Amino acid sequence: MGIKPICEQSQAELQALLQETKEAYAAFQAKKLTLNMARGKPAPAQLDLTMPMLDTLRSDANLISETGDDCRNYGVLAGISEAKKLFASLIGAKAEEMFIGGNSSLELMFACIQIAYVKGIAGCTPWSKLDKVKFLCPVPGYDRHFGLTEYFGVEMIPVPMSEDGPDMDMVQKYVESDASVKGIWCVPIYSNPGGVVYSDETVRRFAALKPAAKDFRIFWDNAYCIHHLVENPKQPLTINAACEESGNLNIFYQFMSTSKITFSGGGVAAFNTSAENLAELSKSLGVQTIGFDKVNQMRHVMFFGDAAGVKAHMEKHRQILKPKFDAVLNALETELKPLGIGEWTHPQGGYFVSFNAPNGCAKRVVQLCKEGGVTLTGAGATFPYKNDPDDRNIRIAPTYPSVDELKQAMELFCICVKYAALEQLVK
Amino acid sequence: MGIKPICEQSQAELQALLQETKEAYAAFQAKKLTLNMARGKPAPAQLDLTMPMLDTLRSDANLISETGDDCRNYGVLAGISEAKKLFASLIGAKAEEMFIGGNSSLELMFACIQIAYVKGIAGCTPWSKLDKVKFLCPVPGYDRHFGLTEYFGVEMIPVPMSEDGPDMDMVQKYVESDASVKGIWCVPIYSNPGGVVYSDETVRRFAALKPAAKDFRIFWDNAYCIHHLVENPKQPLTINAACEESGNLNIFYQFMSTSKITFSGGGVAAFNTSAENLAELSKSLGVQTIGFDKVNQMRHVMFFGDAAGVKAHMEKHRQILKPKFDAVLNALETELKPLGIGEWTHPQGGYFVSFNAPNGCAKRVVQLCKEGGVTLTGAGATFPYKNDPDDRNIRIAPTYPSVDELKQAMELFCICVKYAALEQLVK
Repeated sequence: MGIKPICEQSQAELQALLQETKEAYAAFQAKKLTLNMARGKPAPAQLDLTMPMLDTLRSDANLISETGDDCRNYGVLAGISEAKKLFASLIGAKAEEMFIGGNSSLELMFACIQIAYVKGIAGCTPWSKLDKVKFLCPVPGYDRHFGLTEYFGVEMIPVPMSEDGPDMDMVQKYVESDASVKGIWCVPIYSNPGGVVYSDETVRRFAALKPAAKDFRIFWDNAYCIHHLVENPKQPLTINAACEESGNLNIFYQFMSTSKITFSGGGVAAFNTSAENLAELSKSLGVQTIGFDKVNQMRHVMFFGDAAGVKAHMEKHRQILKPKFDAVLNALETELKPLGIGEWTHPQGGYFVSFNAPNGCAKRVVQLCKEGGVTLTGAGATFPYKNDPDDRNIRIAPTYPSVDELKQAMELFCICVKYAALEQLVK
Repeated sequence: MGIKPICEQSQAELQALLQETKEAYAAFQAKKLTLNMARGKPAPAQLDLTMPMLDTLRSDANLISETGDDCRNYGVLAGISEAKKLFASLIGAKAEEMFIGGNSSLELMFACIQIAYVKGIAGCTPWSKLDKVKFLCPVPGYDRHFGLTEYFGVEMIPVPMSEDGPDMDMVQKYVESDASVKGIWCVPIYSNPGGVVYSDETVRRFAALKPAAKDFRIFWDNAYCIHHLVENPKQPLTINAACEESGNLNIFYQFMSTSKITFSGGGVAAFNTSAENLAELSKSLGVQTIGFDKVNQMRHVMFFGDAAGVKAHMEKHRQILKPKFDAVLNALETELKPLGIGEWTHPQGGYFVSFNAPNGCAKRVVQLCKEGGVTLTGAGATFPYKNDPDDRNIRIAPTYPSVDELKQAMELFCICVKYAALEQLVK
C-alpha cells in the first residue's frame, strides 16, 4: 500500500490512520521507556574523549604561565596568555582581545548585560535607569539567552530567521532607528536550534550597522564554531574580519566555550571584544572576582596544544554525533515525509534539529511524547517568553541518547507528530 | 645606649633619630629591592602542598557523583552532594543548606547582592529601585567587600571593631531602626585585617537581630574558618548554631572557599544559607549559569576525603605561615615597641597583621615603603571609600614573601614608620 500525503487523504483514511497511530502510541507507552532529549548535552561517550586531559596536568606540571604568572595563585583576571592564544585561533580573533573566564560562557554573557544594567557602558545611562530596554531575538533561538534578557526586564522582539541568518532588513531598521534597542542575540554558526550558518553578507551587514544607541552590542554566541557534522564545513566570514573591514570595532561581544569540546561541567569559557570594550568591562569584572580558574585554563592548553589539536578532537566528536543526527533525520524522512507532515532542518553542525510541526501542534506533540516516556525541550522554549505564536517549533536534541535510544525516541516522536496532526484534521 | 619612647625624647634627640633613620632609609633604598606585601596571597610553598591533588583525579576516575550525576556534564546547579557534605562539615552547617560554586567566594557574594539589586529578595523591592541602600562595614575591613558594595551604589557606614567583633550596640541600633540598612560585612574568624575572632556573645547578638528590613542579610564571610596559626585554636560559636537557637534562620549568607586551602586560582567556593533563601536565590543563579565546575569539586573531595583531611592539610599551611608571622611580629617588637611607635595585632590565624601607625602617618609610610622597594596594601584600603579618617591603619600581609624577604621588608617597614612618625614630631 502506497502512503500518500495527509492533505490528499479522505476523512475516512485520516480516521483510520489516526486509529492506527493511537494503537502504535499505546503499544509504545506499554514499553514504559524513559528517555530525555530535552537539552543539548554531550553523551557520556563524548565526555570520555576528554578523560586523558585529566592525565595531562599532574603534580610535576609547570604551572607558571609564559608571562611568569603562577596559575595556582590569585590574579590574571583576563586569563592566561596561552589560553587567549588558543581560543583566539579558534574564532579568528586577536589574542590580546580575548578574556578567558570560568566554565560557563552564559556567565560571561550575564556579566556583560549586568554591567550595562548596573553601571552602564560607553558612557551611556545604566539600563536599570531606563524606562525601556529592548533586545532583538532571532527565532527560533536559545531559551537560556531569552531567560537572561528576561531576568533583566528587557523587552524581547522576535526576528525571523532565514537560511542566511536573521532578517537583516528588520534588524537594521530596529537597530538604526530605535535607541532603546541595546542588543541582539546571535548564534552565527549552526544556530540553536535552526543550524543556520550566517552568510557572509549577513555578517557584513551586522558589522556595518549604525546603531541609534551607542551602547548597542551584538551578542555573538559562537557556541558551535567548530562543532561540525560534515567533513568539509563552510568557512564563514568572522565577525572580527567583518568589523575590521567596517571599522565598527566596538559593536560586538563574542562568546565561546569548551562545554561541548571537553567537559560541559568543567570546561573553559572565552570572551572576545575590542580592546576598548575589554578595558571598560574588566573594571567591573574585577569587582566580581579576583580571577577565574587558571589551573583549568592551563589544563586545556596542555591537552590541546593548538587549534589543530582542538580540531582533531572535534573530529572524534563528529564520529560520535553524525550517526545520531542521521538516526533522527532517517526517522523523519521515513515516517513523516511520505505523509507530508512537518518540516525540519538538515544541520551541517551544532547540536540540534529544528522541527516544525503543523501549526498548533507543538505543545500537543511534546505532551504526548512526555506521556509516552520521552522528554523533549518544552514547546515554545525556542521563542521569547516561551511564546511560539504558531505553536509549531520543537527543538530535537539528538546528542545525549545512544543511537538505539534515539531510534526508539524518534519512533515515538513520529507517532506523536502524526497523532497531533491527525487529531486536528479528523472532524 | 638605652632606647626610650619617642614621647620622652627631646627635640634634639628626635632630630638625631630622624637623621639616623633617613640614613638607614637611604642605605636600604640603595639595595634596590622589589618586594610585594600588598595582597593576602599564599606563597608558592603553600601552593606546592596541593600539587598532589592533581594526581588524585586521573582518567580512570569515577566521575559519577553519589547522586548519579555525571560531574563532567551540565547540571547540578548547587554542586555535588559530596562537596556539600565536605564544606558543611568545615563550618558546622547542614549539607542540604550548602551551594557549591566556582573558584571564587567573592563571585557568590557578588551574586547575592546582584540578585537583591536586580530582582529583590524576600518579596522586597529590588535595591536598584530604592533611593538609598546602606551596608554596615566593620572597620578595618576587607577592601574587596567594600569595592563590591560600592559597585552597586550602596552607602557604606563604618562600624568600629573591638576584640570581640563589631560594636554590636551600634550594629543593633542601625539594623533594627533603619530599613535602608540591608546588610553587614562580617569576617567572623580572624577578621581581615584585624585577626579578630568574634566572641560567642557577638555571634548570639547577630543571630538575635530583629532587622527593620525584611531583606537585611548578614554577609558572613568565613574566609579563614580553619586558617589557624596556633595549635589549639578557639572554637567559636557558629552562626548556624546561633541562628538555630534564635530561630532567625534566613538572616545570614555564609561564604567560604579553598582559595587559601588548595589553589587561589583554582579552588572551590561554597555558600551556606537557609533552605528558603537557597531556593529563592537558586532561581536567579540558574539564569546566570547552568552549573559550576563539578570536576574540580570532585577533585577536591577526592583529595581531602573528609574534614580531618582538610585539617591535616591546614596544619601544613600553619607550619609555613607561623615563622612568617613571627618574623613580622619580632621586627615590630624589636624596632618599634621600645620607641613606643604604633600598635599592632597578634593574630591567632588568618592572613594579616593589622598595624596602626601614629595618626596621619599611614599614607606616608606606604609611600616611603614603595619608594624603598616594598609594595604594601594602599593606606586607607581597609576602610570604605578608602577613607581611613585617622590615616593610620596599614594591612601587613606576611604570607607571600619568604621569611628572608619578609625580614628585609619589615626592616624597611619599621624604618619607614619611624621616619614618618619622627617627621611629624620634629619641629
